[in-house]
Amino acid sequence: MPMPYRLLASMAARIDGRIYLFDAGEGTQLGWKKARLGYRGLHVIAVTHLHADHCLGIPGLMMLRSQMDSPPPLTIIGPPGIEEFIQLNRKALEFHVNYPVLFVEWNEDAPEMAYEDEAVRIFWHPLQHTRFCLGYRLEERDRPGKFNARRAESLGIPQGPLWGKLQRGETVLTETGKEISPEQVLGPPRPGRRLAYVVDTLPVKGIYRLCKDTDIAFMEGMFLPEDAQHADAKGHMTVTDAARIAGRAGVKQAVLTHISPRYHDEDLERLEAAAKERFEKVSIGRDLDTYSVALKP
Amino acid sequence: MPMPYRLLASMAARIDGRIYLFDAGEGTQLGWKKARLGYRGLHVIAVTHLHADHCLGIPGLMMLRSQMDSPPPLTIIGPPGIEEFIQLNRKALEFHVNYPVLFVEWNEDAPEMAYEDEAVRIFWHPLQHTRFCLGYRLEERDRPGKFNARRAESLGIPQGPLWGKLQRGETVLTETGKEISPEQVLGPPRPGRRLAYVVDTLPVKGIYRLCKDTDIAFMEGMFLPEDAQHADAKGHMTVTDAARIAGRAGVKQAVLTHISPRYHDEDLERLEAAAKERFEKVSIGRDLDTYSVALKP
Repeated sequence: MPMPYRLLASMAARIDGRIYLFDAGEGTQLGWKKARLGYRGLHVIAVTHLHADHCLGIPGLMMLRSQMDSPPPLTIIGPPGIEEFIQLNRKALEFHVNYPVLFVEWNEDAPEMAYEDEAVRIFWHPLQHTRFCLGYRLEERDRPGKFNARRAESLGIPQGPLWGKLQRGETVLTETGKEISPEQVLGPPRPGRRLAYVVDTLPVKGIYRLCKDTDIAFMEGMFLPEDAQHADAKGHMTVTDAARIAGRAGVKQAVLTHISPRYHDEDLERLEAAAKERFEKVSIGRDLDTYSVALKP
Repeated sequence: MPMPYRLLASMAARIDGRIYLFDAGEGTQLGWKKARLGYRGLHVIAVTHLHADHCLGIPGLMMLRSQMDSPPPLTIIGPPGIEEFIQLNRKALEFHVNYPVLFVEWNEDAPEMAYEDEAVRIFWHPLQHTRFCLGYRLEERDRPGKFNARRAESLGIPQGPLWGKLQRGETVLTETGKEISPEQVLGPPRPGRRLAYVVDTLPVKGIYRLCKDTDIAFMEGMFLPEDAQHADAKGHMTVTDAARIAGRAGVKQAVLTHISPRYHDEDLERLEAAAKERFEKVSIGRDLDTYSVALKP
Protein backbone atom coordinates (compact mmCIF):
# COMPACT_ATOMS: atom_id res chain seq x y z
CA MET A 1 0.00 0.00 0.00
CA PRO A 2 1.58 3.30 -1.00
CA MET A 3 1.95 6.15 1.47
CA PRO A 4 2.05 9.82 0.50
CA TYR A 5 5.79 9.71 1.22
CA ARG A 6 6.52 6.14 0.17
CA LEU A 7 5.85 4.88 -3.35
CA LEU A 8 5.37 1.23 -4.21
CA ALA A 9 8.14 -1.22 -5.14
CA SER A 10 10.58 -0.24 -7.86
CA MET A 11 14.37 -0.06 -8.12
CA ALA A 12 16.27 1.25 -11.14
CA ALA A 13 19.86 0.17 -11.82
CA ARG A 14 21.61 2.49 -14.28
CA ILE A 15 24.73 1.06 -15.90
CA ASP A 16 26.49 2.91 -18.72
CA GLY A 17 23.30 4.84 -19.51
CA ARG A 18 21.04 1.79 -19.66
CA ILE A 19 18.39 1.31 -17.02
CA TYR A 20 17.40 -2.10 -15.70
CA LEU A 21 14.23 -1.69 -13.64
CA PHE A 22 13.24 -4.17 -10.98
CA ASP A 23 9.49 -4.14 -10.30
CA ALA A 24 7.15 -1.28 -11.10
CA GLY A 25 4.22 -0.81 -8.73
CA GLU A 26 1.40 1.64 -9.38
CA GLY A 27 2.80 5.16 -9.68
CA THR A 28 6.34 4.14 -10.69
CA GLN A 29 6.22 6.62 -13.54
CA LEU A 30 5.79 9.37 -10.94
CA GLY A 31 8.96 8.27 -9.15
CA TRP A 32 10.65 7.90 -12.54
CA LYS A 33 9.90 11.52 -13.35
CA LYS A 34 10.88 12.77 -9.91
CA ALA A 35 14.20 10.95 -10.25
CA ARG A 36 14.65 12.59 -13.70
CA LEU A 37 15.63 9.29 -15.30
CA GLY A 38 14.64 10.43 -18.80
CA TYR A 39 12.86 8.38 -21.44
CA ARG A 40 15.69 6.75 -23.30
CA GLY A 41 17.45 4.62 -20.71
CA LEU A 42 14.83 1.99 -19.87
CA HIS A 43 15.74 -1.30 -21.56
CA VAL A 44 14.61 -4.04 -19.19
CA ILE A 45 11.87 -4.47 -16.58
CA ALA A 46 12.35 -7.49 -14.32
CA VAL A 47 9.22 -8.36 -12.34
CA THR A 48 9.31 -10.43 -9.17
CA HIS A 49 5.65 -11.45 -9.03
CA LEU A 50 2.17 -10.66 -10.18
CA HIS A 51 0.94 -8.62 -7.25
CA ALA A 52 -0.35 -5.18 -8.08
CA ASP A 53 2.18 -3.33 -5.93
CA HIS A 54 4.98 -4.81 -8.06
CA CYS A 55 3.68 -4.60 -11.62
CA LEU A 56 0.68 -2.29 -12.05
CA GLY A 57 3.00 0.59 -13.00
CA ILE A 58 4.33 -1.16 -16.11
CA PRO A 59 1.60 -0.03 -18.53
CA GLY A 60 2.20 3.61 -17.57
CA LEU A 61 5.95 3.27 -18.06
CA MET A 62 5.37 1.62 -21.43
CA MET A 63 3.21 4.56 -22.50
CA LEU A 64 5.74 7.06 -21.16
CA ARG A 65 8.44 5.36 -23.22
CA SER A 66 6.31 5.82 -26.34
CA GLN A 67 6.75 9.58 -25.97
CA MET A 68 10.14 9.39 -27.65
CA ASP A 69 10.92 8.70 -31.30
CA SER A 70 12.03 5.17 -32.25
CA PRO A 71 12.72 3.75 -28.79
CA PRO A 72 14.83 0.61 -28.62
CA PRO A 73 13.05 -2.67 -27.82
CA LEU A 74 11.88 -3.24 -24.25
CA THR A 75 12.44 -6.59 -22.57
CA ILE A 76 10.07 -7.65 -19.78
CA ILE A 77 11.26 -10.52 -17.62
CA GLY A 78 9.08 -12.16 -15.04
CA PRO A 79 6.96 -14.98 -13.69
CA PRO A 80 4.55 -17.03 -15.82
CA GLY A 81 1.60 -14.77 -16.66
CA ILE A 82 3.49 -11.49 -16.97
CA GLU A 83 3.00 -11.40 -20.73
CA GLU A 84 -0.71 -12.12 -20.47
CA PHE A 85 -1.09 -9.40 -17.82
CA ILE A 86 0.55 -6.81 -20.06
CA GLN A 87 -1.17 -7.91 -23.25
CA LEU A 88 -4.65 -7.94 -21.76
CA ASN A 89 -4.18 -4.44 -20.44
CA ARG A 90 -2.82 -3.28 -23.79
CA LYS A 91 -5.95 -4.65 -25.37
CA ALA A 92 -8.42 -3.44 -22.74
CA LEU A 93 -6.95 0.07 -22.62
CA GLU A 94 -6.09 0.17 -26.34
CA PHE A 95 -2.67 1.54 -25.71
CA HIS A 96 -0.11 1.36 -28.43
CA VAL A 97 3.63 1.36 -28.11
CA ASN A 98 6.05 2.39 -30.82
CA TYR A 99 8.72 -0.24 -30.11
CA PRO A 100 9.00 -4.02 -29.89
CA VAL A 101 8.29 -5.64 -26.52
CA LEU A 102 10.03 -8.92 -25.76
CA PHE A 103 8.82 -11.15 -22.95
CA VAL A 104 10.89 -13.71 -21.07
CA GLU A 105 8.81 -15.79 -18.66
CA TRP A 106 10.26 -18.10 -16.06
CA ASN A 107 9.31 -21.75 -16.29
CA GLU A 108 10.51 -24.93 -14.61
CA ASP A 109 13.02 -25.62 -17.36
CA ALA A 110 14.22 -22.03 -17.67
CA PRO A 111 17.99 -21.53 -17.51
CA GLU A 112 19.37 -19.65 -14.55
CA MET A 113 20.13 -16.67 -16.77
CA ALA A 114 17.05 -14.68 -17.71
CA TYR A 115 18.65 -12.01 -19.87
CA GLU A 116 21.97 -10.79 -21.21
CA ASP A 117 23.30 -7.94 -23.28
CA GLU A 118 26.74 -6.42 -23.92
CA ALA A 119 26.89 -4.98 -20.43
CA VAL A 120 25.11 -7.31 -18.01
CA ARG A 121 23.64 -10.70 -17.31
CA ILE A 122 20.51 -11.09 -15.18
CA PHE A 123 19.81 -14.27 -13.22
CA TRP A 124 16.59 -15.30 -11.52
CA HIS A 125 15.65 -17.76 -8.83
CA PRO A 126 12.26 -18.73 -7.34
CA LEU A 127 11.63 -17.60 -3.77
CA GLN A 128 8.73 -18.33 -1.45
CA HIS A 129 5.81 -15.95 -1.11
CA THR A 130 2.00 -16.11 -1.09
CA ARG A 131 2.31 -16.02 -4.85
CA PHE A 132 5.07 -17.41 -7.12
CA CYS A 133 7.89 -14.89 -6.77
CA LEU A 134 11.33 -14.50 -8.34
CA GLY A 135 14.47 -12.91 -6.94
CA TYR A 136 17.07 -11.36 -9.24
CA ARG A 137 20.81 -10.99 -9.46
CA LEU A 138 22.44 -8.69 -11.98
CA GLU A 139 26.09 -9.23 -12.91
CA GLU A 140 27.92 -6.64 -14.89
CA ARG A 141 30.33 -8.22 -17.38
CA ASP A 142 33.99 -8.01 -16.48
CA ARG A 143 35.73 -5.03 -18.02
CA PRO A 144 39.13 -5.33 -19.73
CA GLY A 145 42.15 -4.44 -17.59
CA LYS A 146 43.67 -0.97 -17.62
CA PHE A 147 45.69 -0.14 -20.75
CA ASN A 148 49.37 0.56 -20.02
CA ALA A 149 50.25 3.23 -22.59
CA ARG A 150 53.91 3.52 -21.57
CA ARG A 151 54.38 -0.23 -21.91
CA ALA A 152 52.74 -0.20 -25.38
CA GLU A 153 55.09 2.54 -26.56
CA SER A 154 58.13 0.73 -25.19
CA LEU A 155 57.03 -2.39 -27.13
CA GLY A 156 56.94 -0.37 -30.35
CA ILE A 157 53.23 0.51 -30.60
CA PRO A 158 52.87 4.31 -30.62
CA GLN A 159 49.55 6.03 -29.88
CA GLY A 160 47.13 5.35 -32.71
CA PRO A 161 44.47 2.92 -33.92
CA LEU A 162 46.46 -0.12 -32.76
CA TRP A 163 45.89 0.93 -29.15
CA GLY A 164 42.14 0.51 -29.65
CA LYS A 165 42.63 -2.95 -31.11
CA LEU A 166 44.73 -4.03 -28.14
CA GLN A 167 42.12 -2.61 -25.75
CA ARG A 168 39.43 -4.65 -27.52
CA GLY A 169 41.51 -7.80 -27.06
CA GLU A 170 43.13 -8.13 -30.49
CA THR A 171 46.75 -9.06 -31.15
CA VAL A 172 48.62 -6.51 -33.34
CA LEU A 173 51.95 -6.25 -35.20
CA THR A 174 54.68 -3.64 -34.60
CA GLU A 175 56.29 -1.86 -37.59
CA THR A 176 59.07 -4.45 -37.41
CA GLY A 177 56.53 -7.30 -37.62
CA LYS A 178 56.65 -8.36 -33.97
CA GLU A 179 53.39 -9.75 -32.49
CA ILE A 180 52.10 -7.90 -29.42
CA SER A 181 49.25 -9.58 -27.54
CA PRO A 182 46.70 -7.72 -25.36
CA GLU A 183 47.95 -9.42 -22.20
CA GLN A 184 51.30 -7.61 -22.65
CA VAL A 185 49.74 -4.14 -22.34
CA LEU A 186 46.52 -4.70 -20.32
CA GLY A 187 46.26 -5.12 -16.58
CA PRO A 188 44.13 -7.92 -15.14
CA PRO A 189 40.42 -7.84 -16.13
CA ARG A 190 38.36 -5.74 -13.72
CA PRO A 191 35.45 -7.71 -12.30
CA GLY A 192 31.97 -6.35 -13.03
CA ARG A 193 29.73 -5.06 -10.27
CA ARG A 194 26.97 -7.25 -8.87
CA LEU A 195 23.61 -6.49 -7.38
CA ALA A 196 20.66 -8.42 -6.07
CA TYR A 197 16.96 -7.55 -5.77
CA VAL A 198 15.04 -9.77 -3.39
CA VAL A 199 11.60 -8.83 -2.08
CA ASP A 200 8.36 -10.50 -0.97
CA THR A 201 9.73 -13.77 0.29
CA LEU A 202 10.21 -15.84 3.36
CA PRO A 203 13.87 -16.10 4.36
CA VAL A 204 14.67 -19.07 2.09
CA LYS A 205 17.98 -20.50 0.90
CA GLY A 206 17.69 -19.21 -2.66
CA ILE A 207 18.29 -15.71 -1.36
CA TYR A 208 21.89 -16.58 -0.45
CA ARG A 209 22.55 -17.69 -3.99
CA LEU A 210 21.21 -14.43 -5.40
CA CYS A 211 22.95 -12.20 -2.90
CA LYS A 212 26.30 -14.04 -2.67
CA ASP A 213 29.18 -11.52 -2.69
CA THR A 214 27.12 -8.78 -4.31
CA ASP A 215 28.29 -5.18 -4.10
CA ILE A 216 24.79 -4.06 -3.27
CA ALA A 217 21.65 -6.00 -2.41
CA PHE A 218 18.16 -4.52 -2.26
CA MET A 219 16.17 -6.71 0.08
CA GLU A 220 12.80 -6.44 1.70
CA GLY A 221 12.83 -5.53 5.36
CA MET A 222 9.09 -5.38 5.74
CA PHE A 223 8.71 -5.89 9.48
CA LEU A 224 10.41 -5.33 12.83
CA PRO A 225 11.53 -8.55 14.51
CA GLU A 226 8.68 -8.23 17.06
CA ASP A 227 6.23 -8.48 14.14
CA ALA A 228 7.84 -11.70 12.87
CA GLN A 229 4.51 -13.54 13.10
CA HIS A 230 2.97 -11.17 10.58
CA ALA A 231 6.01 -11.53 8.34
CA ASP A 232 5.73 -15.29 8.45
CA ALA A 233 1.99 -15.37 7.87
CA LYS A 234 2.21 -13.02 4.90
CA GLY A 235 5.31 -14.55 3.32
CA HIS A 236 7.71 -11.73 4.13
CA MET A 237 11.04 -11.13 5.89
CA THR A 238 11.77 -9.02 8.92
CA VAL A 239 14.69 -6.60 8.85
CA THR A 240 16.52 -9.11 11.05
CA ASP A 241 16.05 -11.91 8.51
CA ALA A 242 17.33 -9.73 5.70
CA ALA A 243 20.33 -8.42 7.63
CA ARG A 244 21.31 -11.89 8.78
CA ILE A 245 21.21 -13.27 5.23
CA ALA A 246 23.09 -10.26 3.83
CA GLY A 247 25.86 -10.73 6.37
CA ARG A 248 26.18 -14.46 5.76
CA ALA A 249 26.07 -14.05 1.97
CA GLY A 250 28.99 -11.64 1.98
CA VAL A 251 26.93 -8.71 0.69
CA LYS A 252 29.02 -5.53 0.75
CA GLN A 253 26.05 -3.19 1.22
CA ALA A 254 22.42 -4.06 1.92
CA VAL A 255 19.50 -1.68 1.40
CA LEU A 256 16.19 -2.65 2.98
CA THR A 257 13.02 -1.67 1.16
CA HIS A 258 9.36 -2.73 0.94
CA ILE A 259 8.68 -1.41 4.44
CA SER A 260 5.21 -2.19 5.82
CA PRO A 261 2.85 0.79 5.85
CA ARG A 262 2.38 0.13 9.58
CA TYR A 263 5.74 1.89 10.06
CA HIS A 264 5.85 5.60 9.40
CA ASP A 265 8.88 7.67 8.56
CA GLU A 266 9.65 8.20 12.23
CA ASP A 267 9.87 4.42 12.72
CA LEU A 268 12.54 3.87 10.10
CA GLU A 269 15.42 4.48 12.50
CA ARG A 270 14.13 1.67 14.69
CA LEU A 271 14.00 -0.67 11.70
CA GLU A 272 17.54 0.29 10.77
CA ALA A 273 18.81 -0.17 14.31
CA ALA A 274 17.25 -3.63 14.52
CA ALA A 275 18.87 -4.61 11.22
CA LYS A 276 22.28 -3.28 12.25
CA GLU A 277 22.31 -5.61 15.22
CA ARG A 278 22.85 -8.40 12.69
CA PHE A 279 24.84 -6.67 9.93
CA GLU A 280 26.64 -3.37 10.08
CA LYS A 281 26.48 -2.38 6.40
CA VAL A 282 22.74 -2.13 6.12
CA SER A 283 20.48 0.89 5.70
CA ILE A 284 16.81 1.59 5.06
CA GLY A 285 16.05 2.73 1.52
CA ARG A 286 13.86 5.80 1.16
CA ASP A 287 12.04 7.09 -1.93
CA LEU A 288 14.42 8.43 -4.58
CA ASP A 289 17.55 7.45 -2.66
CA THR A 290 20.48 6.75 -4.98
CA TYR A 291 23.52 4.57 -4.33
CA SER A 292 26.71 4.68 -6.37
CA VAL A 293 28.70 1.49 -6.66
CA ALA A 294 32.26 2.33 -7.72
CA LEU A 295 33.93 0.45 -10.57
CA LYS A 296 36.50 -1.93 -9.20
CA PRO A 297 40.12 -0.84 -9.59
CA MET B 1 0.90 11.65 -18.60
CA PRO B 2 1.39 12.47 -14.93
CA MET B 3 3.83 15.13 -13.79
CA PRO B 4 5.57 15.12 -10.42
CA TYR B 5 3.21 17.91 -9.39
CA ARG B 6 0.14 16.86 -11.36
CA LEU B 7 -1.55 13.50 -10.84
CA LEU B 8 -3.75 11.86 -13.45
CA ALA B 9 -7.50 12.34 -13.79
CA SER B 10 -9.68 11.89 -10.71
CA MET B 11 -12.30 13.99 -8.95
CA ALA B 12 -14.01 13.06 -5.68
CA ALA B 13 -17.42 14.48 -4.77
CA ARG B 14 -18.18 14.10 -1.07
CA ILE B 15 -21.84 14.44 -0.14
CA ASP B 16 -23.03 13.66 3.38
CA GLY B 17 -19.97 11.48 3.98
CA ARG B 18 -20.32 9.42 0.81
CA ILE B 19 -17.74 9.79 -1.90
CA TYR B 20 -18.59 9.57 -5.58
CA LEU B 21 -15.36 9.35 -7.53
CA PHE B 22 -15.12 10.35 -11.17
CA ASP B 23 -12.23 8.64 -12.97
CA ALA B 24 -9.19 7.12 -11.27
CA GLY B 25 -5.96 7.28 -13.24
CA GLU B 26 -2.77 5.53 -12.12
CA GLY B 27 -1.74 6.82 -8.71
CA THR B 28 -5.19 7.99 -7.59
CA GLN B 29 -4.74 6.16 -4.29
CA LEU B 30 -1.76 8.44 -3.62
CA GLY B 31 -3.91 11.52 -4.13
CA TRP B 32 -6.64 9.86 -2.07
CA LYS B 33 -4.25 9.45 0.84
CA LYS B 34 -2.82 12.94 0.50
CA ALA B 35 -6.36 14.32 0.58
CA ARG B 36 -7.04 12.23 3.72
CA LEU B 37 -10.33 10.95 2.34
CA GLY B 38 -10.33 7.86 4.55
CA TYR B 39 -11.39 4.35 3.58
CA ARG B 40 -15.04 4.33 4.35
CA GLY B 41 -16.52 7.00 2.11
CA LEU B 42 -15.97 5.57 -1.37
CA HIS B 43 -19.26 4.20 -2.72
CA VAL B 44 -19.21 4.83 -6.46
CA ILE B 45 -16.56 5.12 -9.17
CA ALA B 46 -17.81 6.60 -12.43
CA VAL B 47 -15.41 6.09 -15.32
CA THR B 48 -15.46 8.22 -18.46
CA HIS B 49 -13.50 5.93 -20.78
CA LEU B 50 -11.05 3.07 -20.96
CA HIS B 51 -7.82 4.99 -21.32
CA ALA B 52 -5.17 4.20 -18.74
CA ASP B 53 -4.96 7.74 -17.38
CA HIS B 54 -8.63 7.50 -16.37
CA CYS B 55 -9.00 4.00 -14.97
CA LEU B 56 -5.70 2.29 -14.13
CA GLY B 57 -5.95 3.51 -10.54
CA ILE B 58 -9.15 1.57 -9.83
CA PRO B 59 -7.51 -1.75 -8.81
CA GLY B 60 -5.35 0.05 -6.24
CA LEU B 61 -8.37 1.86 -4.79
CA MET B 62 -10.27 -1.41 -4.62
CA MET B 63 -7.44 -2.99 -2.65
CA LEU B 64 -7.15 0.05 -0.40
CA ARG B 65 -10.84 -0.25 0.37
CA SER B 66 -10.30 -3.87 1.43
CA GLN B 67 -8.21 -2.60 4.33
CA MET B 68 -11.34 -1.92 6.35
CA ASP B 69 -13.72 -4.37 7.93
CA SER B 70 -16.98 -5.11 6.12
CA PRO B 71 -16.96 -2.28 3.58
CA PRO B 72 -20.26 -1.47 1.90
CA PRO B 73 -20.70 -2.54 -1.75
CA LEU B 74 -18.83 -0.58 -4.42
CA THR B 75 -20.57 0.43 -7.63
CA ILE B 76 -18.49 0.97 -10.75
CA ILE B 77 -20.19 2.80 -13.58
CA GLY B 78 -18.65 3.20 -16.99
CA PRO B 79 -18.36 2.43 -20.68
CA PRO B 80 -18.76 -1.04 -22.17
CA GLY B 81 -15.70 -3.06 -21.17
CA ILE B 82 -15.13 -1.55 -17.72
CA GLU B 83 -16.23 -4.75 -15.99
CA GLU B 84 -13.97 -6.91 -18.15
CA PHE B 85 -11.03 -4.58 -17.51
CA ILE B 86 -11.49 -4.84 -13.75
CA GLN B 87 -12.21 -8.55 -13.71
CA LEU B 88 -9.22 -9.52 -15.83
CA ASN B 89 -6.92 -7.53 -13.58
CA ARG B 90 -8.49 -9.10 -10.49
CA LYS B 91 -7.74 -12.47 -12.00
CA ALA B 92 -4.25 -11.70 -13.33
CA LEU B 93 -3.14 -10.04 -10.09
CA GLU B 94 -5.13 -12.38 -7.85
CA PHE B 95 -6.43 -9.58 -5.72
CA HIS B 96 -9.39 -10.17 -3.53
CA VAL B 97 -11.86 -7.68 -2.21
CA ASN B 98 -13.95 -8.11 0.88
CA TYR B 99 -17.12 -6.45 -0.46
CA PRO B 100 -19.53 -6.85 -3.38
CA VAL B 101 -18.68 -4.95 -6.58
CA LEU B 102 -21.56 -3.94 -8.81
CA PHE B 103 -20.99 -2.91 -12.41
CA VAL B 104 -23.21 -0.69 -14.50
CA GLU B 105 -22.08 -0.44 -18.12
CA TRP B 106 -23.47 1.98 -20.63
CA ASN B 107 -25.12 0.56 -23.71
CA GLU B 108 -27.19 2.01 -26.53
CA ASP B 109 -30.44 1.25 -24.71
CA ALA B 110 -29.22 2.41 -21.30
CA PRO B 111 -31.46 4.87 -19.49
CA GLU B 112 -30.13 8.39 -18.95
CA MET B 113 -29.72 7.66 -15.25
CA ALA B 114 -26.74 5.44 -14.47
CA TYR B 115 -27.08 5.25 -10.69
CA GLU B 116 -29.18 6.43 -7.78
CA ASP B 117 -29.17 6.17 -4.02
CA GLU B 118 -30.88 8.02 -1.17
CA ALA B 119 -28.75 11.11 -1.72
CA VAL B 120 -27.99 11.47 -5.42
CA ARG B 121 -28.74 10.46 -8.97
CA ILE B 122 -25.98 10.18 -11.56
CA PHE B 123 -26.65 10.67 -15.28
CA TRP B 124 -24.37 9.87 -18.19
CA HIS B 125 -24.16 10.93 -21.81
CA PRO B 126 -21.81 9.84 -24.61
CA LEU B 127 -19.30 12.44 -25.76
CA GLN B 128 -16.82 12.36 -28.65
CA HIS B 129 -13.21 11.30 -28.12
CA THR B 130 -10.67 8.98 -29.76
CA ARG B 131 -12.31 6.27 -27.70
CA PHE B 132 -15.93 5.93 -26.55
CA CYS B 133 -16.24 8.37 -23.65
CA LEU B 134 -18.99 9.31 -21.22
CA GLY B 135 -19.64 12.58 -19.44
CA TYR B 136 -21.43 12.67 -16.09
CA ARG B 137 -23.90 14.79 -14.20
CA LEU B 138 -24.62 14.27 -10.52
CA GLU B 139 -27.84 15.63 -9.05
CA GLU B 140 -28.30 15.70 -5.33
CA ARG B 141 -31.88 14.91 -4.37
CA ASP B 142 -33.92 17.85 -3.18
CA ARG B 143 -33.87 18.27 0.57
CA PRO B 144 -37.02 18.94 2.62
CA GLY B 145 -37.69 22.58 3.40
CA LYS B 146 -36.57 24.15 6.66
CA PHE B 147 -38.59 23.15 9.72
CA ASN B 148 -40.40 26.05 11.36
CA ALA B 149 -40.24 25.14 15.07
CA ARG B 150 -42.21 28.17 16.27
CA ARG B 151 -45.01 27.42 13.83
CA ALA B 152 -45.12 23.76 14.95
CA GLU B 153 -45.45 24.81 18.59
CA SER B 154 -48.17 27.32 17.78
CA LEU B 155 -50.09 24.53 15.99
CA GLY B 156 -49.91 22.38 19.11
CA ILE B 157 -46.87 20.17 18.37
CA PRO B 158 -44.26 20.72 21.10
CA GLN B 159 -40.62 19.65 20.65
CA GLY B 160 -40.41 15.82 20.57
CA PRO B 161 -40.59 12.81 18.28
CA LEU B 162 -43.45 14.31 16.24
CA TRP B 163 -41.07 16.98 14.94
CA GLY B 164 -38.94 14.26 13.33
CA LYS B 165 -42.00 12.72 11.71
CA LEU B 166 -43.03 16.04 10.24
CA GLN B 167 -39.47 16.63 8.99
CA ARG B 168 -39.57 13.25 7.26
CA GLY B 169 -42.79 14.22 5.50
CA GLU B 170 -45.36 12.44 7.69
CA THR B 171 -48.67 13.90 8.82
CA VAL B 172 -49.14 13.85 12.63
CA LEU B 173 -51.91 14.45 15.17
CA THR B 174 -51.93 17.07 17.94
CA GLU B 175 -53.02 16.07 21.48
CA THR B 176 -56.46 17.34 20.60
CA GLY B 177 -56.58 15.07 17.52
CA LYS B 178 -56.03 17.76 14.90
CA GLU B 179 -54.13 16.69 11.76
CA ILE B 180 -50.97 18.66 11.03
CA SER B 181 -49.39 18.09 7.63
CA PRO B 182 -45.70 18.64 6.84
CA GLU B 183 -46.46 21.50 4.44
CA GLN B 184 -47.79 23.50 7.41
CA VAL B 185 -44.44 23.50 9.20
CA LEU B 186 -41.85 23.04 6.44
CA GLY B 187 -40.56 25.70 4.06
CA PRO B 188 -40.33 24.97 0.36
CA PRO B 189 -38.07 21.99 -0.60
CA ARG B 190 -34.45 23.04 -1.04
CA PRO B 191 -33.11 22.01 -4.43
CA GLY B 192 -30.16 19.64 -4.41
CA ARG B 193 -26.76 20.65 -5.68
CA ARG B 194 -25.65 19.67 -9.15
CA LEU B 195 -22.28 18.97 -10.64
CA ALA B 196 -20.88 17.83 -13.95
CA TYR B 197 -17.69 15.99 -14.89
CA VAL B 198 -16.75 16.26 -18.55
CA VAL B 199 -13.29 15.40 -19.82
CA ASP B 200 -11.63 13.98 -22.94
CA THR B 201 -14.07 15.16 -25.55
CA LEU B 202 -14.44 17.44 -28.49
CA PRO B 203 -16.75 20.37 -27.72
CA VAL B 204 -19.99 18.54 -28.61
CA LYS B 205 -23.62 19.33 -27.82
CA GLY B 206 -24.01 16.64 -25.14
CA ILE B 207 -21.81 18.68 -22.85
CA TYR B 208 -24.48 21.39 -22.55
CA ARG B 209 -26.99 18.83 -21.41
CA LEU B 210 -24.64 17.53 -18.70
CA CYS B 211 -23.53 20.96 -17.52
CA LYS B 212 -26.86 22.78 -17.75
CA ASP B 213 -27.34 24.99 -14.66
CA THR B 214 -24.88 23.00 -12.52
CA ASP B 215 -23.44 24.54 -9.40
CA ILE B 216 -20.00 23.31 -10.33
CA ALA B 217 -18.67 21.71 -13.49
CA PHE B 218 -15.31 20.00 -13.80
CA MET B 219 -14.34 20.20 -17.45
CA GLU B 220 -11.21 19.48 -19.36
CA GLY B 221 -9.23 22.50 -20.46
CA MET B 222 -6.42 20.58 -22.02
CA PHE B 223 -5.00 23.15 -24.40
CA LEU B 224 -4.53 26.87 -24.96
CA PRO B 225 -6.59 28.25 -27.84
CA GLU B 226 -3.43 28.58 -29.98
CA ASP B 227 -3.02 24.80 -29.72
CA ALA B 228 -6.58 24.16 -30.95
CA GLN B 229 -5.29 21.98 -33.79
CA HIS B 230 -3.79 19.54 -31.31
CA ALA B 231 -6.99 19.57 -29.28
CA ASP B 232 -9.03 18.79 -32.35
CA ALA B 233 -6.71 16.05 -33.61
CA LYS B 234 -6.60 14.35 -30.24
CA GLY B 235 -10.29 14.70 -29.40
CA HIS B 236 -9.94 17.30 -26.67
CA MET B 237 -11.20 20.78 -25.75
CA THR B 238 -9.23 23.98 -25.36
CA VAL B 239 -9.81 26.14 -22.29
CA THR B 240 -11.74 28.47 -24.58
CA ASP B 241 -14.09 25.68 -25.68
CA ALA B 242 -14.76 24.68 -22.09
CA ALA B 243 -15.29 28.24 -20.84
CA ARG B 244 -17.63 29.07 -23.72
CA ILE B 245 -19.77 26.00 -23.07
CA ALA B 246 -19.80 26.60 -19.31
CA GLY B 247 -21.01 30.17 -19.84
CA ARG B 248 -23.74 29.18 -22.29
CA ALA B 249 -24.89 26.23 -20.14
CA GLY B 250 -25.45 28.48 -17.13
CA VAL B 251 -22.76 26.80 -15.03
CA LYS B 252 -22.25 28.69 -11.77
CA GLN B 253 -18.60 27.72 -11.36
CA ALA B 254 -16.34 25.89 -13.81
CA VAL B 255 -13.08 24.17 -12.87
CA LEU B 256 -10.76 23.23 -15.72
CA THR B 257 -8.68 20.08 -15.32
CA HIS B 258 -6.88 17.51 -17.48
CA ILE B 259 -4.24 20.07 -18.46
CA SER B 260 -1.77 18.90 -21.11
CA PRO B 261 1.69 18.06 -19.75
CA ARG B 262 3.08 20.53 -22.29
CA TYR B 263 1.99 23.25 -19.86
CA HIS B 264 3.90 23.51 -16.61
CA ASP B 265 2.71 25.10 -13.40
CA GLU B 266 3.96 28.51 -14.48
CA ASP B 267 1.70 28.29 -17.57
CA LEU B 268 -1.52 27.75 -15.65
CA GLU B 269 -2.20 31.46 -15.23
CA ARG B 270 -2.15 31.87 -19.01
CA LEU B 271 -4.64 29.02 -19.37
CA GLU B 272 -6.88 30.62 -16.76
CA ALA B 273 -6.64 34.05 -18.37
CA ALA B 274 -7.56 32.61 -21.79
CA ALA B 275 -10.57 30.84 -20.25
CA LYS B 276 -11.73 33.94 -18.38
CA GLU B 277 -12.01 35.83 -21.66
CA ARG B 278 -15.08 33.67 -22.33
CA PHE B 279 -16.48 33.05 -18.86
CA GLU B 280 -15.69 34.91 -15.68
CA LYS B 281 -16.39 32.12 -13.16
CA VAL B 282 -13.75 29.71 -14.28
CA SER B 283 -10.53 28.59 -12.64
CA ILE B 284 -7.82 25.99 -13.22
CA GLY B 285 -7.97 23.00 -10.89
CA ARG B 286 -4.73 21.99 -9.21
CA ASP B 287 -3.92 18.73 -7.38
CA LEU B 288 -5.82 18.38 -4.11
CA ASP B 289 -7.81 21.57 -4.59
CA THR B 290 -11.17 21.40 -2.83
CA TYR B 291 -14.34 23.32 -3.61
CA SER B 292 -17.28 23.69 -1.28
CA VAL B 293 -20.70 24.06 -2.80
CA ALA B 294 -23.07 25.54 -0.23
CA LEU B 295 -26.45 24.00 0.38
CA LYS B 296 -29.16 26.14 -1.12
CA PRO B 297 -31.14 28.24 1.33
